[in-house]
Amino acid sequence: MDVMGRIERALTSNLKRGSGTACPPKLVAAVNHAVFPRGARIRPRLCLAVAAACGEDAPKLTEAAAVAIEFLHCASLVHDDLPCFDNADMRRGKPSVHRAFGEPLAVLAGDALIVTAFETVALAGAPWPQRLAPLTLIIARSVGMPFGIAAGQAWECEPKIDLSAYQRSKTGALFAAATMAGAASAGQAPEPWRNLGDRLGEAFQVADDILDVAAKAEDLGKPTGQDAALDRPNAVNQLGLDGALARLRLLAKQAVDAVPDCRGAVELRAHILSETQRLVPKQLAQSAA
Amino acid sequence: MDVMGRIERALTSNLKRGSGTACPPKLVAAVNHAVFPRGARIRPRLCLAVAAACGEDAPKLTEAAAVAIEFLHCASLVHDDLPCFDNADMRRGKPSVHRAFGEPLAVLAGDALIVTAFETVALAGAPWPQRLAPLTLIIARSVGMPFGIAAGQAWECEPKIDLSAYQRSKTGALFAAATMAGAASAGQAPEPWRNLGDRLGEAFQVADDILDVAAKAEDLGKPTGQDAALDRPNAVNQLGLDGALARLRLLAKQAVDAVPDCRGAVELRAHILSETQRLVPKQLAQSAA
Repeated sequence: MDVMGRIERALTSNLKRGSGTACPPKLVAAVNHAVFPRGARIRPRLCLAVAAACGEDAPKLTEAAAVAIEFLHCASLVHDDLPCFDNADMRRGKPSVHRAFGEPLAVLAGDALIVTAFETVALAGAPWPQRLAPLTLIIARSVGMPFGIAAGQAWECEPKIDLSAYQRSKTGALFAAATMAGAASAGQAPEPWRNLGDRLGEAFQVADDILDVAAKAEDLGKPTGQDAALDRPNAVNQLGLDGALARLRLLAKQAVDAVPDCRGAVELRAHILSETQRLVPKQLAQSAA
Repeated sequence: MDVMGRIERALTSNLKRGSGTACPPKLVAAVNHAVFPRGARIRPRLCLAVAAACGEDAPKLTEAAAVAIEFLHCASLVHDDLPCFDNADMRRGKPSVHRAFGEPLAVLAGDALIVTAFETVALAGAPWPQRLAPLTLIIARSVGMPFGIAAGQAWECEPKIDLSAYQRSKTGALFAAATMAGAASAGQAPEPWRNLGDRLGEAFQVADDILDVAAKAEDLGKPTGQDAALDRPNAVNQLGLDGALARLRLLAKQAVDAVPDCRGAVELRAHILSETQRLVPKQLAQSAA
Protein backbone atom coordinates (compact mmCIF):
# COMPACT_ATOMS: atom_id res chain seq x y z
CA MET A 1 0.00 0.00 0.00
CA ASP A 2 1.21 3.51 -0.80
CA VAL A 3 1.32 4.87 2.73
CA MET A 4 2.62 8.33 1.83
CA GLY A 5 -0.03 8.73 -0.84
CA ARG A 6 -2.68 7.72 1.64
CA ILE A 7 -1.48 10.30 4.15
CA GLU A 8 -1.20 13.13 1.61
CA ARG A 9 -4.66 12.39 0.25
CA ALA A 10 -6.18 12.40 3.73
CA LEU A 11 -4.37 15.64 4.66
CA THR A 12 -5.56 17.27 1.43
CA SER A 13 -9.19 16.23 1.72
CA ASN A 14 -9.44 17.25 5.36
CA LEU A 15 -7.97 20.68 4.65
CA LYS A 16 -10.17 21.15 1.59
CA ARG A 17 -13.28 20.98 3.76
CA GLY A 18 -12.51 24.39 5.26
CA SER A 19 -10.85 25.94 2.23
CA GLY A 20 -13.70 27.05 -0.03
CA THR A 21 -14.14 30.55 -1.36
CA ALA A 22 -16.07 31.37 1.83
CA CYS A 23 -12.77 31.31 3.75
CA PRO A 24 -10.29 34.21 3.72
CA PRO A 25 -7.86 33.20 0.93
CA LYS A 26 -4.69 34.12 2.83
CA LEU A 27 -5.66 31.90 5.75
CA VAL A 28 -6.24 29.02 3.33
CA ALA A 29 -2.83 29.68 1.77
CA ALA A 30 -1.08 29.93 5.16
CA VAL A 31 -2.58 26.68 6.41
CA ASN A 32 -1.59 24.88 3.22
CA HIS A 33 1.90 26.37 3.41
CA ALA A 34 2.19 24.91 6.92
CA VAL A 35 1.17 21.40 5.87
CA PHE A 36 2.54 21.04 2.30
CA PRO A 37 4.82 20.05 0.70
CA ARG A 38 5.38 17.14 2.90
CA GLY A 39 7.78 16.66 5.74
CA ALA A 40 8.79 13.13 6.70
CA ARG A 41 5.24 12.49 8.06
CA ILE A 42 6.90 10.27 10.63
CA ARG A 43 4.04 10.52 13.17
CA PRO A 44 1.13 9.71 10.84
CA ARG A 45 3.14 6.84 9.30
CA LEU A 46 3.73 5.49 12.79
CA CYS A 47 0.02 5.75 13.58
CA LEU A 48 -0.92 3.86 10.39
CA ALA A 49 1.75 1.21 11.02
CA VAL A 50 0.48 0.52 14.55
CA ALA A 51 -3.14 0.36 13.37
CA ALA A 52 -2.13 -2.12 10.65
CA ALA A 53 -0.31 -4.25 13.21
CA CYS A 54 -3.46 -4.20 15.36
CA GLY A 55 -5.61 -5.46 12.49
CA GLU A 56 -6.98 -2.13 11.27
CA ASP A 57 -10.75 -2.36 10.73
CA ALA A 58 -11.76 1.31 10.48
CA PRO A 59 -9.43 2.79 7.86
CA LYS A 60 -11.13 6.19 7.68
CA LEU A 61 -10.90 6.59 11.45
CA THR A 62 -7.24 5.55 11.48
CA GLU A 63 -6.46 8.01 8.68
CA ALA A 64 -8.28 10.75 10.59
CA ALA A 65 -6.25 10.06 13.72
CA ALA A 66 -3.02 10.04 11.71
CA VAL A 67 -3.66 13.33 9.94
CA ALA A 68 -5.03 14.99 13.09
CA ILE A 69 -1.67 14.25 14.71
CA GLU A 70 0.15 15.69 11.70
CA PHE A 71 -2.05 18.83 11.74
CA LEU A 72 -1.19 19.31 15.41
CA HIS A 73 2.50 18.78 14.69
CA CYS A 74 2.36 21.38 11.91
CA ALA A 75 0.48 23.80 14.18
CA SER A 76 3.18 23.46 16.82
CA LEU A 77 5.89 24.18 14.23
CA VAL A 78 4.09 27.29 13.01
CA HIS A 79 3.69 28.69 16.52
CA ASP A 80 7.19 27.61 17.65
CA ASP A 81 8.71 29.44 14.67
CA LEU A 82 7.06 32.75 15.68
CA PRO A 83 9.35 35.68 16.56
CA CYS A 84 8.42 35.42 20.26
CA PHE A 85 9.75 31.82 20.34
CA ASP A 86 12.45 30.58 17.94
CA ASN A 87 12.08 33.42 15.41
CA ALA A 88 12.91 30.91 12.66
CA ASP A 89 12.97 32.18 9.10
CA MET A 90 13.01 28.77 7.41
CA ARG A 91 11.09 25.52 7.78
CA ARG A 92 11.13 22.51 5.46
CA GLY A 93 13.36 24.44 3.08
CA LYS A 94 11.07 27.43 2.59
CA PRO A 95 10.08 30.53 4.54
CA SER A 96 8.29 29.85 7.82
CA VAL A 97 4.59 30.78 7.86
CA HIS A 98 5.06 34.10 9.65
CA ARG A 99 7.86 35.06 7.23
CA ALA A 100 5.65 34.25 4.25
CA PHE A 101 2.30 35.54 5.55
CA GLY A 102 2.99 37.71 8.61
CA GLU A 103 2.50 37.02 12.29
CA PRO A 104 -1.30 37.40 12.48
CA LEU A 105 -1.89 34.71 9.85
CA ALA A 106 0.72 32.46 11.47
CA VAL A 107 -1.10 32.63 14.81
CA LEU A 108 -4.44 32.00 13.11
CA ALA A 109 -3.13 29.20 10.87
CA GLY A 110 -1.84 27.38 13.97
CA ASP A 111 -5.17 27.88 15.73
CA ALA A 112 -7.12 26.71 12.68
CA LEU A 113 -4.94 23.59 12.36
CA ILE A 114 -5.57 22.65 16.01
CA VAL A 115 -9.31 22.99 15.47
CA THR A 116 -9.17 21.11 12.16
CA ALA A 117 -7.43 18.22 13.91
CA PHE A 118 -10.33 17.71 16.32
CA GLU A 119 -12.91 18.29 13.61
CA THR A 120 -11.23 15.64 11.45
CA VAL A 121 -11.40 13.02 14.20
CA ALA A 122 -15.00 13.84 15.12
CA LEU A 123 -16.14 13.59 11.52
CA ALA A 124 -14.54 10.17 10.99
CA GLY A 125 -15.56 9.08 14.48
CA ALA A 126 -19.31 9.50 13.95
CA PRO A 127 -19.69 5.89 12.66
CA TRP A 128 -17.48 4.61 15.52
CA PRO A 129 -19.03 6.36 18.51
CA GLN A 130 -17.46 4.06 21.13
CA ARG A 131 -13.96 4.85 19.85
CA LEU A 132 -14.34 8.61 19.49
CA ALA A 133 -14.00 9.74 23.11
CA PRO A 134 -10.87 7.70 23.92
CA LEU A 135 -9.26 8.68 20.62
CA THR A 136 -9.99 12.39 21.11
CA LEU A 137 -8.64 12.24 24.67
CA ILE A 138 -5.39 10.57 23.58
CA ILE A 139 -4.83 13.26 20.99
CA ALA A 140 -5.90 16.19 23.20
CA ARG A 141 -3.67 15.12 26.06
CA SER A 142 -0.66 14.93 23.78
CA VAL A 143 -0.92 18.62 22.90
CA GLY A 144 -2.52 20.22 25.97
CA MET A 145 -1.87 20.50 29.70
CA PRO A 146 -0.14 19.20 31.75
CA PHE A 147 1.83 16.76 29.55
CA GLY A 148 1.30 17.86 25.95
CA ILE A 149 3.20 20.05 23.48
CA ALA A 150 1.86 23.37 24.78
CA ALA A 151 3.05 22.47 28.28
CA GLY A 152 6.39 21.25 26.92
CA GLN A 153 6.95 24.49 25.06
CA ALA A 154 5.96 26.47 28.16
CA TRP A 155 8.83 24.93 30.15
CA GLU A 156 11.06 27.24 28.09
CA CYS A 157 9.42 30.18 29.92
CA GLU A 158 10.28 28.85 33.41
CA PRO A 159 13.39 29.94 35.33
CA LYS A 160 14.01 26.31 36.32
CA ILE A 161 13.30 23.68 33.69
CA ASP A 162 12.18 20.12 34.41
CA LEU A 163 14.29 18.64 31.61
CA SER A 164 12.68 15.24 31.42
CA ALA A 165 9.15 16.71 31.53
CA TYR A 166 10.20 19.25 28.90
CA GLN A 167 11.43 16.67 26.40
CA ARG A 168 8.70 14.16 27.11
CA SER A 169 6.00 16.79 26.56
CA LYS A 170 7.55 18.71 23.71
CA THR A 171 8.51 15.74 21.53
CA GLY A 172 7.55 12.45 23.14
CA ALA A 173 3.88 13.17 23.73
CA LEU A 174 2.92 13.29 20.06
CA PHE A 175 4.81 10.05 19.33
CA ALA A 176 2.99 8.30 22.16
CA ALA A 177 -0.25 9.75 20.77
CA ALA A 178 0.61 8.31 17.35
CA THR A 179 1.10 4.76 18.64
CA MET A 180 -1.82 4.89 21.11
CA ALA A 181 -4.20 6.49 18.60
CA GLY A 182 -3.22 3.90 16.00
CA ALA A 183 -4.28 1.16 18.41
CA ALA A 184 -7.41 2.96 19.66
CA SER A 185 -8.59 3.71 16.13
CA ALA A 186 -8.41 -0.04 15.44
CA GLY A 187 -10.45 -0.81 18.54
CA GLN A 188 -7.51 -2.03 20.65
CA ALA A 189 -6.51 -0.89 24.14
CA PRO A 190 -4.13 2.07 23.73
CA GLU A 191 -2.16 1.87 26.99
CA PRO A 192 0.17 -1.04 26.02
CA TRP A 193 1.32 1.11 23.10
CA ARG A 194 2.49 4.08 25.15
CA ASN A 195 6.00 2.77 25.85
CA LEU A 196 6.77 2.29 22.16
CA GLY A 197 5.77 5.90 21.47
CA ASP A 198 7.82 7.16 24.42
CA ARG A 199 10.97 5.33 23.23
CA LEU A 200 10.51 6.58 19.67
CA GLY A 201 9.88 10.11 20.84
CA GLU A 202 13.08 10.12 22.84
CA ALA A 203 15.01 8.61 19.92
CA PHE A 204 13.64 11.30 17.65
CA GLN A 205 14.64 14.01 20.14
CA VAL A 206 18.20 12.67 20.35
CA ALA A 207 18.39 12.47 16.54
CA ASP A 208 17.08 16.03 16.29
CA ASP A 209 19.77 17.14 18.74
CA ILE A 210 22.46 15.36 16.69
CA LEU A 211 21.25 17.00 13.46
CA ASP A 212 21.12 20.42 15.09
CA VAL A 213 24.83 20.08 15.88
CA ALA A 214 26.16 17.98 13.00
CA ALA A 215 23.98 18.58 9.93
CA LYS A 216 23.97 21.41 7.40
CA ALA A 217 21.06 23.84 7.32
CA GLU A 218 20.56 23.30 3.58
CA ASP A 219 20.19 19.54 4.08
CA LEU A 220 17.78 20.05 6.96
CA GLY A 221 15.63 22.81 5.45
CA LYS A 222 15.77 24.74 8.73
CA PRO A 223 18.48 26.54 10.72
CA THR A 224 21.04 24.46 12.65
CA GLY A 225 22.85 25.37 15.86
CA GLN A 226 19.54 26.55 17.31
CA ASP A 227 19.88 24.75 20.66
CA ALA A 228 23.17 26.50 21.42
CA ALA A 229 21.82 29.84 20.13
CA LEU A 230 18.65 29.56 22.22
CA ASP A 231 20.38 27.93 25.19
CA ARG A 232 18.29 24.78 24.99
CA PRO A 233 19.40 21.35 26.25
CA ASN A 234 21.01 19.13 23.59
CA ALA A 235 22.06 15.47 23.90
CA VAL A 236 25.33 16.04 22.00
CA ASN A 237 26.41 18.71 24.45
CA GLN A 238 25.62 16.37 27.33
CA LEU A 239 26.96 13.07 25.91
CA GLY A 240 29.26 14.03 23.04
CA LEU A 241 28.50 12.99 19.44
CA ASP A 242 29.52 9.33 19.96
CA GLY A 243 27.58 9.18 23.20
CA ALA A 244 24.48 10.64 21.59
CA LEU A 245 24.70 8.17 18.66
CA ALA A 246 25.06 5.28 21.12
CA ARG A 247 22.03 6.54 23.04
CA LEU A 248 20.08 6.71 19.78
CA ARG A 249 20.97 3.06 18.98
CA LEU A 250 19.90 1.97 22.45
CA LEU A 251 16.58 3.80 22.20
CA ALA A 252 15.95 2.27 18.77
CA LYS A 253 16.51 -1.21 20.20
CA GLN A 254 14.24 -0.45 23.16
CA ALA A 255 11.56 0.76 20.75
CA VAL A 256 11.72 -2.46 18.72
CA ASP A 257 11.47 -4.46 21.96
CA ALA A 258 8.54 -2.34 23.12
CA VAL A 259 6.21 -3.51 20.34
CA PRO A 260 3.41 -5.38 22.16
CA ASP A 261 2.24 -8.79 20.99
CA CYS A 262 -0.15 -8.31 18.11
CA ARG A 263 -0.91 -9.96 14.82
CA GLY A 264 1.40 -7.71 12.81
CA ALA A 265 4.25 -7.49 15.33
CA VAL A 266 6.95 -8.80 12.95
CA GLU A 267 6.20 -6.26 10.23
CA LEU A 268 5.89 -3.46 12.76
CA ARG A 269 9.28 -4.24 14.33
CA ALA A 270 10.84 -4.11 10.88
CA HIS A 271 9.12 -0.76 10.25
CA ILE A 272 10.41 0.65 13.55
CA LEU A 273 13.92 -0.53 12.81
CA SER A 274 13.93 1.04 9.37
CA GLU A 275 12.42 4.29 10.68
CA THR A 276 14.98 4.67 13.46
CA GLN A 277 17.83 3.98 11.04
CA ARG A 278 16.67 6.86 8.89
CA LEU A 279 16.70 9.37 11.75
CA VAL A 280 20.31 10.43 11.11
CA PRO A 281 22.19 10.18 7.78
CA LYS A 282 23.96 6.82 7.33
CA GLN A 283 27.32 8.49 6.84
CA LEU A 284 27.03 10.35 10.13
CA ALA A 285 25.98 7.23 12.06
CA GLN A 286 28.75 5.12 10.52
CA SER A 287 31.56 7.63 10.85
CA ALA A 288 30.98 7.79 14.58
CA ALA A 289 30.24 4.08 15.19
CA MET B 1 -30.51 27.06 40.14
CA ASP B 2 -27.35 29.13 40.51
CA VAL B 3 -26.33 29.22 36.86
CA MET B 4 -23.23 31.35 37.35
CA GLY B 5 -22.00 29.13 40.16
CA ARG B 6 -22.53 26.08 37.99
CA ILE B 7 -20.50 27.61 35.15
CA GLU B 8 -17.64 28.78 37.40
CA ARG B 9 -17.44 25.36 39.08
CA ALA B 10 -17.31 23.58 35.72
CA LEU B 11 -14.68 25.99 34.37
CA THR B 12 -12.59 25.52 37.49
CA SER B 13 -12.74 21.73 37.59
CA ASN B 14 -11.97 21.39 33.88
CA LEU B 15 -8.93 23.67 34.17
CA LYS B 16 -7.75 21.94 37.32
CA ARG B 17 -7.34 18.68 35.42
CA GLY B 18 -4.31 20.06 33.56
CA SER B 19 -2.97 22.31 36.30
CA GLY B 20 -1.06 20.01 38.66
CA THR B 21 2.54 20.55 39.67
CA ALA B 22 3.54 18.54 36.58
CA CYS B 23 2.57 21.55 34.42
CA PRO B 24 4.78 24.63 34.00
CA PRO B 25 3.42 27.01 36.69
CA LYS B 26 3.43 30.11 34.48
CA LEU B 27 1.29 28.39 31.86
CA VAL B 28 -1.18 27.40 34.57
CA ALA B 29 -1.23 30.99 35.81
CA ALA B 30 -1.65 32.43 32.30
CA VAL B 31 -4.54 30.12 31.46
CA ASN B 32 -6.29 30.95 34.74
CA HIS B 33 -5.67 34.66 34.14
CA ALA B 34 -7.41 34.29 30.77
CA VAL B 35 -10.50 32.57 32.21
CA PHE B 36 -10.92 34.15 35.69
CA PRO B 37 -12.29 36.28 37.21
CA ARG B 38 -15.43 35.97 35.26
CA GLY B 39 -16.65 37.87 32.28
CA ALA B 40 -20.37 37.97 31.59
CA ARG B 41 -20.26 34.26 30.58
CA ILE B 42 -22.99 35.12 28.10
CA ARG B 43 -22.25 32.17 25.77
CA PRO B 44 -22.20 29.37 28.38
CA ARG B 45 -25.33 30.82 30.03
CA LEU B 46 -27.04 30.75 26.65
CA CYS B 47 -25.95 27.14 26.11
CA LEU B 48 -27.33 26.08 29.50
CA ALA B 49 -30.57 28.00 28.94
CA VAL B 50 -31.20 26.28 25.60
CA ALA B 51 -30.40 22.85 27.06
CA ALA B 52 -32.85 23.51 29.91
CA ALA B 53 -35.54 24.55 27.43
CA CYS B 54 -34.89 21.31 25.52
CA GLY B 55 -35.40 19.20 28.67
CA GLU B 56 -31.75 18.75 29.65
CA ASP B 57 -31.05 15.10 30.49
CA ALA B 58 -27.22 14.99 30.47
CA PRO B 59 -26.17 17.84 32.75
CA LYS B 60 -22.44 16.99 32.73
CA LEU B 61 -22.39 16.95 28.94
CA THR B 62 -24.27 20.25 28.75
CA GLU B 63 -21.87 21.83 31.23
CA ALA B 64 -18.92 20.54 29.22
CA ALA B 65 -20.31 22.05 26.02
CA ALA B 66 -20.95 25.35 27.78
CA VAL B 67 -17.49 25.66 29.29
CA ALA B 68 -15.78 24.43 26.10
CA ILE B 69 -17.42 27.35 24.30
CA GLU B 70 -16.23 29.73 27.04
CA PHE B 71 -12.67 28.32 26.86
CA LEU B 72 -12.68 28.92 23.10
CA HIS B 73 -14.02 32.44 23.61
CA CYS B 74 -11.26 33.16 26.14
CA ALA B 75 -8.63 31.69 23.80
CA SER B 76 -9.79 33.97 21.00
CA LEU B 77 -9.55 37.01 23.30
CA VAL B 78 -6.01 36.09 24.37
CA HIS B 79 -4.83 35.69 20.78
CA ASP B 80 -6.78 38.74 19.51
CA ASP B 81 -5.16 40.91 22.18
CA LEU B 82 -1.62 39.98 20.98
CA PRO B 83 0.60 42.79 19.68
CA CYS B 84 0.31 41.49 16.09
CA PHE B 85 -3.49 41.94 16.25
CA ASP B 86 -5.16 44.50 18.54
CA ASN B 87 -2.15 45.03 20.83
CA ALA B 88 -4.57 45.50 23.73
CA ASP B 89 -3.09 46.18 27.15
CA MET B 90 -6.27 45.60 29.15
CA ARG B 91 -9.01 42.96 29.21
CA ARG B 92 -11.78 42.52 31.79
CA GLY B 93 -10.26 45.36 33.81
CA LYS B 94 -6.78 43.85 34.20
CA PRO B 95 -3.68 43.43 32.04
CA SER B 96 -4.16 41.24 28.97
CA VAL B 97 -2.38 37.86 29.13
CA HIS B 98 0.60 38.91 27.01
CA ARG B 99 1.05 42.06 29.11
CA ALA B 100 1.00 40.02 32.30
CA PHE B 101 2.95 36.95 31.14
CA GLY B 102 4.66 37.85 27.86
CA GLU B 103 3.85 36.87 24.30
CA PRO B 104 5.10 33.25 24.35
CA LEU B 105 2.82 32.31 27.25
CA ALA B 106 -0.09 34.17 25.66
CA VAL B 107 0.27 32.14 22.46
CA LEU B 108 0.57 28.91 24.45
CA ALA B 109 -2.29 29.75 26.83
CA GLY B 110 -4.58 30.29 23.84
CA ASP B 111 -3.44 27.01 22.29
CA ALA B 112 -3.90 25.13 25.56
CA LEU B 113 -7.41 26.55 26.01
CA ILE B 114 -8.43 25.40 22.53
CA VAL B 115 -7.17 21.90 23.30
CA THR B 116 -8.80 21.90 26.76
CA ALA B 117 -12.13 22.77 25.17
CA PHE B 118 -12.12 19.62 23.03
CA GLU B 119 -10.74 17.50 25.87
CA THR B 120 -13.56 18.72 28.12
CA VAL B 121 -16.25 17.70 25.65
CA ALA B 122 -14.66 14.31 24.92
CA LEU B 123 -14.38 13.48 28.61
CA ALA B 124 -18.02 14.30 29.34
CA GLY B 125 -19.09 12.73 26.05
CA ALA B 126 -17.78 9.23 26.80
CA PRO B 127 -21.07 8.16 28.46
CA TRP B 128 -23.05 9.75 25.58
CA PRO B 129 -21.21 8.38 22.55
CA GLN B 130 -23.99 9.13 20.04
CA ARG B 131 -23.97 12.80 20.99
CA LEU B 132 -20.21 13.35 21.03
CA ALA B 133 -19.45 13.60 17.29
CA PRO B 134 -22.25 16.08 16.46
CA LEU B 135 -21.44 18.17 19.52
CA THR B 136 -17.71 18.28 18.73
CA LEU B 137 -18.44 19.22 15.12
CA ILE B 138 -20.75 22.07 16.12
CA ILE B 139 -18.08 23.48 18.40
CA ALA B 140 -15.15 22.92 16.01
CA ARG B 141 -16.93 24.57 13.10
CA SER B 142 -17.65 27.66 15.18
CA VAL B 143 -13.96 28.35 15.72
CA GLY B 144 -12.24 26.87 12.64
CA MET B 145 -12.39 27.22 8.87
CA PRO B 146 -14.22 28.40 6.82
CA PHE B 147 -16.89 29.94 9.09
CA GLY B 148 -15.42 30.03 12.61
CA ILE B 149 -13.59 32.58 14.71
CA ALA B 150 -10.14 31.93 13.21
CA ALA B 151 -11.55 32.57 9.74
CA GLY B 152 -13.43 35.63 10.97
CA GLN B 153 -10.29 37.11 12.46
CA ALA B 154 -8.35 36.30 9.27
CA TRP B 155 -10.68 38.54 7.23
CA GLU B 156 -8.82 41.45 8.89
CA CYS B 157 -5.72 40.36 6.91
CA GLU B 158 -7.47 40.56 3.53
CA PRO B 159 -7.30 43.65 1.29
CA LYS B 160 -11.03 43.30 0.59
CA ILE B 161 -13.21 42.26 3.51
CA ASP B 162 -16.44 40.29 3.21
CA LEU B 163 -18.17 42.24 5.97
CA SER B 164 -21.06 39.92 6.59
CA ALA B 165 -18.81 36.82 6.61
CA TYR B 166 -16.41 38.68 8.91
CA GLN B 167 -19.02 39.51 11.53
CA ARG B 168 -20.85 36.21 11.26
CA SER B 169 -17.63 34.25 11.77
CA LYS B 170 -15.92 36.46 14.30
CA THR B 171 -18.86 36.91 16.65
CA GLY B 172 -21.95 35.09 15.44
CA ALA B 173 -20.43 31.63 15.05
CA LEU B 174 -19.82 31.07 18.75
CA PHE B 175 -23.34 32.24 19.65
CA ALA B 176 -24.81 29.79 17.12
CA ALA B 177 -22.54 27.12 18.62
CA ALA B 178 -23.89 27.95 22.08
CA THR B 179 -27.53 27.49 21.09
CA MET B 180 -26.90 24.46 18.85
CA ALA B 181 -24.60 22.75 21.36
CA GLY B 182 -27.16 23.34 24.11
CA ALA B 183 -29.73 21.47 22.05
CA ALA B 184 -27.34 18.73 20.88
CA SER B 185 -26.07 18.08 24.40
CA ALA B 186 -29.69 17.46 25.42
CA GLY B 187 -30.19 15.01 22.56
CA GLN B 188 -32.22 17.39 20.37
CA ALA B 189 -31.63 18.30 16.73
CA PRO B 190 -29.31 21.33 16.68
CA GLU B 191 -30.19 22.89 13.31
CA PRO B 192 -33.49 24.56 14.37
CA TRP B 193 -31.47 26.45 16.99
CA ARG B 194 -29.02 28.09 14.58
CA ASN B 195 -31.17 31.11 13.75
CA LEU B 196 -31.54 32.07 17.41
CA GLY B 197 -27.76 32.01 17.82
CA ASP B 198 -27.24 34.00 14.64
CA ARG B 199 -29.65 36.75 15.75
CA LEU B 200 -28.09 36.94 19.20
CA GLY B 201 -24.59 37.01 17.76
CA GLU B 202 -25.50 39.91 15.53
CA ALA B 203 -27.20 41.71 18.44
CA PHE B 204 -24.09 41.23 20.54
CA GLN B 205 -21.89 42.58 17.74
CA VAL B 206 -24.04 45.71 17.39
CA ALA B 207 -24.01 46.21 21.18
CA ASP B 208 -20.23 45.79 21.18
CA ASP B 209 -19.97 48.41 18.44
CA ILE B 210 -22.17 50.79 20.45
CA LEU B 211 -20.09 50.31 23.59
CA ASP B 212 -16.85 50.81 21.67
CA VAL B 213 -18.12 54.24 20.63
CA ALA B 214 -20.25 55.32 23.59
CA ALA B 215 -18.93 53.66 26.74
CA LYS B 216 -16.02 54.54 29.01
CA ALA B 217 -12.98 52.28 29.09
CA GLU B 218 -13.11 52.01 32.88
CA ASP B 219 -16.70 50.76 32.77
CA LEU B 220 -15.85 48.26 30.03
CA GLY B 221 -12.55 46.95 31.43
CA LYS B 222 -10.95 47.22 27.98
CA PRO B 223 -9.99 50.06 25.65
CA THR B 224 -12.74 51.88 23.71
CA GLY B 225 -12.52 53.54 20.31
CA GLN B 226 -10.71 50.48 19.01
CA ASP B 227 -12.77 50.09 15.83
CA ALA B 228 -11.90 53.59 14.67
CA ALA B 229 -8.26 53.18 15.73
CA LEU B 230 -7.94 49.84 13.92
CA ASP B 231 -10.14 50.87 11.00
CA ARG B 232 -12.68 48.16 11.66
CA PRO B 233 -16.34 48.32 10.62
CA ASN B 234 -18.69 49.61 13.34
CA ALA B 235 -22.49 49.75 13.29
CA VAL B 236 -22.59 53.24 14.89
CA ASN B 237 -20.44 54.65 12.13
CA GLN B 238 -22.73 53.08 9.55
CA LEU B 239 -26.14 53.76 11.17
CA GLY B 240 -25.54 56.48 13.75
CA LEU B 241 -26.12 55.84 17.47
CA ASP B 242 -29.93 55.95 17.23
CA GLY B 243 -29.86 53.72 14.18
CA ALA B 244 -27.60 51.20 15.89
CA LEU B 245 -29.82 51.12 18.97
CA ALA B 246 -32.89 50.59 16.79
CA ARG B 247 -31.10 47.76 14.99
CA LEU B 248 -30.24 46.21 18.36
CA ARG B 249 -33.90 46.31 19.44
CA LEU B 250 -34.98 44.71 16.17
CA LEU B 251 -32.40 41.92 16.50
CA ALA B 252 -33.48 41.28 20.09
CA LYS B 253 -37.08 40.89 18.97
CA GLN B 254 -36.05 38.59 16.12
CA ALA B 255 -34.06 36.49 18.60
CA VAL B 256 -37.06 36.09 20.90
CA ASP B 257 -39.19 35.10 17.90
CA ALA B 258 -36.53 32.62 16.76
CA VAL B 259 -36.90 30.36 19.80
CA PRO B 260 -38.19 27.05 18.38
CA ASP B 261 -41.12 25.25 19.95
CA CYS B 262 -39.86 23.31 22.94
CA ARG B 263 -41.04 22.49 26.41
CA GLY B 264 -39.28 25.45 28.02
CA ALA B 265 -39.93 28.02 25.29
CA VAL B 266 -41.65 30.56 27.56
CA GLU B 267 -38.82 30.68 30.09
CA LEU B 268 -36.21 30.79 27.34
CA ARG B 269 -37.89 33.73 25.60
CA ALA B 270 -37.89 35.61 28.90
CA HIS B 271 -34.19 34.77 29.34
CA ILE B 272 -33.36 36.02 25.84
CA LEU B 273 -35.27 39.24 26.42
CA SER B 274 -33.50 39.92 29.69
CA GLU B 275 -30.09 39.10 28.18
CA THR B 276 -30.54 41.39 25.21
CA GLN B 277 -31.71 44.22 27.46
CA ARG B 278 -28.47 43.97 29.42
CA LEU B 279 -26.26 44.30 26.35
CA VAL B 280 -26.05 48.09 26.60
CA PRO B 281 -26.49 50.17 29.78
CA LYS B 282 -30.13 51.15 30.39
CA GLN B 283 -29.28 54.85 30.47
CA LEU B 284 -27.66 54.69 27.06
CA ALA B 285 -30.55 52.77 25.51
CA GLN B 286 -33.17 55.13 27.04
CA SER B 287 -31.43 58.37 26.23
CA ALA B 288 -31.40 57.48 22.57
CA ALA B 289 -34.85 55.86 22.40
